[in-house]
Amino acid sequence: MPIGKAAIFVEPYRFEITDLPTREVEPGAVLVNVTSAGVCGSDLHYWRGEMKPKITGRPGPVILGHEMTGVVHTLGSGVSTDSMGRPLSEGDRVVFTYFFPCGRCYVCLRGELNHCPHRFRFRASVEEDPYCSGGFAEYYYLHPGHYVFRVPDELPDEAVTAANCAVSQVIYGLQIGGARMGDSVVIQGAGGLGLYATAAARDMGAARVITIDGIAPRLDMARRCGADHVIDINEYATPEARIERVKELTGGWGADVCLEVVGYPQVVAEGLQMLRPGGALVEIGNIWENSNVTLDLSKVIWGQTRIIPAAHYHPQALPAALDFLVRTRDRYPLTSVMSHSYPLERIGEAFEQSEWLGKSEDTAITRAFVAP
Amino acid sequence: MPIGKAAIFVEPYRFEITDLPTREVEPGAVLVNVTSAGVCGSDLHYWRGEMKPKITGRPGPVILGHEMTGVVHTLGSGVSTDSMGRPLSEGDRVVFTYFFPCGRCYVCLRGELNHCPHRFRFRASVEEDPYCSGGFAEYYYLHPGHYVFRVPDELPDEAVTAANCAVSQVIYGLQIGGARMGDSVVIQGAGGLGLYATAAARDMGAARVITIDGIAPRLDMARRCGADHVIDINEYATPEARIERVKELTGGWGADVCLEVVGYPQVVAEGLQMLRPGGALVEIGNIWENSNVTLDLSKVIWGQTRIIPAAHYHPQALPAALDFLVRTRDRYPLTSVMSHSYPLERIGEAFEQSEWLGKSEDTAITRAFVAP
Amino acid sequence: MPIGKAAIFVEPYRFEITDLPTREVEPGAVLVNVTSAGVCGSDLHYWRGEMKPKITGRPGPVILGHEMTGVVHTLGSGVSTDSMGRPLSEGDRVVFTYFFPCGRCYVCLRGELNHCPHRFRFRASVEEDPYCSGGFAEYYYLHPGHYVFRVPDELPDEAVTAANCAVSQVIYGLQIGGARMGDSVVIQGAGGLGLYATAAARDMGAARVITIDGIAPRLDMARRCGADHVIDINEYATPEARIERVKELTGGWGADVCLEVVGYPQVVAEGLQMLRPGGALVEIGNIWENSNVTLDLSKVIWGQTRIIPAAHYHPQALPAALDFLVRTRDRYPLTSVMSHSYPLERIGEAFEQSEWLGKSEDTAITRAFVAP
Amino acid sequence: MPIGKAAIFVEPYRFEITDLPTREVEPGAVLVNVTSAGVCGSDLHYWRGEMKPKITGRPGPVILGHEMTGVVHTLGSGVSTDSMGRPLSEGDRVVFTYFFPCGRCYVCLRGELNHCPHRFRFRASVEEDPYCSGGFAEYYYLHPGHYVFRVPDELPDEAVTAANCAVSQVIYGLQIGGARMGDSVVIQGAGGLGLYATAAARDMGAARVITIDGIAPRLDMARRCGADHVIDINEYATPEARIERVKELTGGWGADVCLEVVGYPQVVAEGLQMLRPGGALVEIGNIWENSNVTLDLSKVIWGQTRIIPAAHYHPQALPAALDFLVRTRDRYPLTSVMSHSYPLERIGEAFEQSEWLGKSEDTAITRAFVAP
Repeated sequence: MPIGKAAIFVEPYRFEITDLPTREVEPGAVLVNVTSAGVCGSDLHYWRGEMKPKITGRPGPVILGHEMTGVVHTLGSGVSTDSMGRPLSEGDRVVFTYFFPCGRCYVCLRGELNHCPHRFRFRASVEEDPYCSGGFAEYYYLHPGHYVFRVPDELPDEAVTAANCAVSQVIYGLQIGGARMGDSVVIQGAGGLGLYATAAARDMGAARVITIDGIAPRLDMARRCGADHVIDINEYATPEARIERVKELTGGWGADVCLEVVGYPQVVAEGLQMLRPGGALVEIGNIWENSNVTLDLSKVIWGQTRIIPAAHYHPQALPAALDFLVRTRDRYPLTSVMSHSYPLERIGEAFEQSEWLGKSEDTAITRAFVAP
Repeated sequence: MPIGKAAIFVEPYRFEITDLPTREVEPGAVLVNVTSAGVCGSDLHYWRGEMKPKITGRPGPVILGHEMTGVVHTLGSGVSTDSMGRPLSEGDRVVFTYFFPCGRCYVCLRGELNHCPHRFRFRASVEEDPYCSGGFAEYYYLHPGHYVFRVPDELPDEAVTAANCAVSQVIYGLQIGGARMGDSVVIQGAGGLGLYATAAARDMGAARVITIDGIAPRLDMARRCGADHVIDINEYATPEARIERVKELTGGWGADVCLEVVGYPQVVAEGLQMLRPGGALVEIGNIWENSNVTLDLSKVIWGQTRIIPAAHYHPQALPAALDFLVRTRDRYPLTSVMSHSYPLERIGEAFEQSEWLGKSEDTAITRAFVAP
Repeated sequence: MPIGKAAIFVEPYRFEITDLPTREVEPGAVLVNVTSAGVCGSDLHYWRGEMKPKITGRPGPVILGHEMTGVVHTLGSGVSTDSMGRPLSEGDRVVFTYFFPCGRCYVCLRGELNHCPHRFRFRASVEEDPYCSGGFAEYYYLHPGHYVFRVPDELPDEAVTAANCAVSQVIYGLQIGGARMGDSVVIQGAGGLGLYATAAARDMGAARVITIDGIAPRLDMARRCGADHVIDINEYATPEARIERVKELTGGWGADVCLEVVGYPQVVAEGLQMLRPGGALVEIGNIWENSNVTLDLSKVIWGQTRIIPAAHYHPQALPAALDFLVRTRDRYPLTSVMSHSYPLERIGEAFEQSEWLGKSEDTAITRAFVAP
Repeated sequence: MPIGKAAIFVEPYRFEITDLPTREVEPGAVLVNVTSAGVCGSDLHYWRGEMKPKITGRPGPVILGHEMTGVVHTLGSGVSTDSMGRPLSEGDRVVFTYFFPCGRCYVCLRGELNHCPHRFRFRASVEEDPYCSGGFAEYYYLHPGHYVFRVPDELPDEAVTAANCAVSQVIYGLQIGGARMGDSVVIQGAGGLGLYATAAARDMGAARVITIDGIAPRLDMARRCGADHVIDINEYATPEARIERVKELTGGWGADVCLEVVGYPQVVAEGLQMLRPGGALVEIGNIWENSNVTLDLSKVIWGQTRIIPAAHYHPQALPAALDFLVRTRDRYPLTSVMSHSYPLERIGEAFEQSEWLGKSEDTAITRAFVAP
């Protein structure tokens, strides 16, 4: 089996580039040659030492990165198609979920595949199993039966890296929030997730997509991604003003669905009040420990507003995301979001660049990515 | 109260134009001045004498037409908004459902408003209550509480007449069939319903919309309305060939949702086989008595395909339809479907023209309409 | 029209008994002679001055009480059946919802009748419209089209008063929480709502019903109402211990649905952790202003647990509640929950008794009621 | 590995008892020692030569039987729990689904596990893989990851054999038909499926369960299983009379859900007319090729009645079925349905007995079973 490079995350702010052996490809498995991996916000958290990566085996140094794409290096015996039943050959470009439900536990029995507690069971330290925990490496190992999808030719690598995370996540979020044709949808935050969500809500036939942020280029980008209205938090400076604005834009009723993708706990209380009676707030952004918010439950009850978390997604959302990216590539500027590219050896610069981009006031979703 | 003209349907192929008094407008009611009414396929059936109009009061001569739009003539006391809560004044352009659920029977109690058996309770003969049974007249009376919606300025009258019937019907059909972003949708038939359905499925984010018909201009129109693929029944001349073609276009799986809008019973058996396991056939077109089809139930069971009828719609579909028509007016040629216009006095010609258009091999959805 | 007695709530802790005229019964309306009205926890809040009753007309003295039953005094013209289509005559025993959706606003259009913001539009002060705001009076006026249901002979009045509030509320709560045969259900609180919920979850085919409280007679009652397990908070004294116990009783997974009916904000955070991944917490009890709880949203996201408020119910829940009470009357001690009865003139004593019962350590759901 | 007996189905009406070697138990797999297998109606069809068993490998002689239970003989490495997470040891009594979704195809991606077209991928002829195709043998091999559940001590073997087929099937059928507390449910047929369905509908809190059959002992049994009403087709001899009777028993509305479990195509047209507007007919029984029925689609549309097939079930239905059997064992006579037991060597007699029981006019659901 081939030997490949990997960027090992050894401690906050430090990677080490090493050569690691791949393992033999079991029947049903697929070895992928990673061609591009994006730096996600969660990777930055690990990098800063604010969170520890979850691995299930023996703790130890790991490979970060879960937004990635690549080409098939080796197909295990018995694998001749992707998960949609399309022919799959070595050399084909592919994407895959970064989690893998077991298919047979209490929640999988009910078809709720994204709730499976064993969905990260193959994440391991580099010492135990180097090539199935992260994308910042030359290889990624898909255990037998892992979901894998051929990438349409129309999509460049840098457009695809976010498909298995941000894009699928917001599509699934809108779906479980019940968004449908004719609905009013609020998107809280116009970062990467927010822009994908804006375009996806538009593509599902929303009557009104209202995107909220405070950075002008992001709001511009939101408009280009299909937002009918944007709310600039500098102009509407209080929660009350923003709630009032949403009501005004929705004939006094409030939105049917609100997607929280900005990651500030306090906006949840605000978002709930932006909803019509019976509306749903889909909670995606506040994934960090101690994302505390104080809610007046009586407002939740009398407002009759549901809080629906969306972590991971039904695997079906990934082919839907690919299709969405292809279909809308001329309409929304979503497929050219990665402006900075670095070879694996310069992964540290990619993280520094991403950190700067996240803080910058004059950028939208351009992000750094790494091409092993 | 004003007196207005009406085209009374006295016997097959014959209308009589008469003056009829309107009634006093009760509190909560609205008197509408009809400005345009389209000839629907069902109207042609009545006209030919193939079906008798359903009226609930004393039988007698009636006014046909249920696809219509108009302006508010008189608002009953207490009415100051439309059903979305927007201000409503005399002179405003409006559309309204052609049915009106009671809101309080066994099925309404469950929120299934379109299943209400009393939804036509106000349809009456012209002798009993002239102005609430049909659109081919100068006035239409909306009983207290009837759903009524302001028409967006962007939409011309002729684009709006179909909103309360064909457009809302297919939107609702796609929704209860469970169509969602990333799905494959088959539309059986590219007449008026089929073209609206094609565009609506596309606007909901379907991955693939496949429209089937046998008339070239309709198939062209389907492509312009967003069909990714069309199946010409002259080219694919057998059910087997068409089923095979759908499978081919869906990676071997079949469609997630199939909408029957052509009104031939036998296509239902065909459509069921075009579905993936677990898919849904939405049955809309076969509304005429004795629309008999023989189904092998074992194929339904082993194919695991649901048959879901869609008659009428949740009232919410109507504002969704208006929004859809506005939003996509530059993308699809849906708002200019009425090519022939006649004054009320020449309603007979409108029906003859519609009859001819329905049979014509070189037209798509252009239809006659009547402007009282 | 008859004149009747009413207990007017004039200020905290004080009622005044007055004679009030009824109004003429409009077509479609029903005048009910109230025979029994229960004191609900929310009535006690008004009584203590902790909350002001919501009335929509001119503020002023009101009649409290919304859990009630009675007999038909006068049927308005055109009313010959109840809302299930069963014949209805003067003298028949009836129950009715204490709210009344308009059926035609933005949310009613979607069939979400219990979300209607106009559902209390007829509540008025005694000066404006005496007989449609509260049950502690000789009459109650059902506006045209109000939901009304005949009471089965098997049920005594005191068993029926809670049907339109507590019983319907928990049935609806379990339904929108998605509880189904084979599920594990936790009920937080074994007061009136909790005991009805325990029995209803059992009657829906739950695999395991686990009821939590701290008062021994209530826990006993919960067992008699079908709880498979009870958790005594004196024995399991910390949230951690109770969460652990629920996990233990559910094979380590947690419950599918948790119903909060105790009205302490902090139990919501606890209840969420009692759920399996993907489970639902149905929030019913914390209806009082400033029912504040601090939630770590990251736990909600990673636990993938939904928060679903249930205020009011689909009207269908009320006939379902009546049927449930009849069907299970020999199995659960639900139909004999009212131990103290007072004539209207002694309504003050009824409230004092209820206050005492609510605080008592040795009672379960016995409650005072008033028989005008 | 042990050698075991098996009853090979060699040709219509003929079995051969042979010794067959088991295979080595892979990691993740389980070898089960079958203790009891019931004769299902479908087995009789194979036996008579009316249908050919579906096997996916090389055709050849097979082992029939899919309703079975047993004890764990050997656990493959890595298997320490059942699919609910409960400890599993050799010697434990178990049941398991007779199908096994792949978890990763187009429909599994959507969580629709029972729609998986690969769910029988391991069925093979005895020459290829003897022990995973049928229950009339000493062993059954569960491939890695197969759903397996420990059997509660309260249930005897003969009560458990139907759990993985008939009981789970009707529970799933009622669930996808949308049956809920307060609903009226019609069960067409009081054979084995019908009696389980009657009791399950009752246990889910149906307001009214109405069971239809023509054999007196079955109707008696239906009453004992919780039917509120039975309709004897000898008394109500025409479809019209039976439809009328259902309407009468449901206040004129019709049933919310109708479960077809008798396997006569023509009852589907009848069942559809027994439904309320918007109701659902769940189609389970007509699994044999050419189960043709002629439907007037216009009645389906105007009746607004859905046809929902139920083949196989979400795996969650199996633990729900076990729980249901335990919980209701003292209430309904469901756990003592197998009256005739035969050793494997006398399997021919078991089939003859079952054939006779199926035709008999004086039996209910007693069935023969085979104890290897």
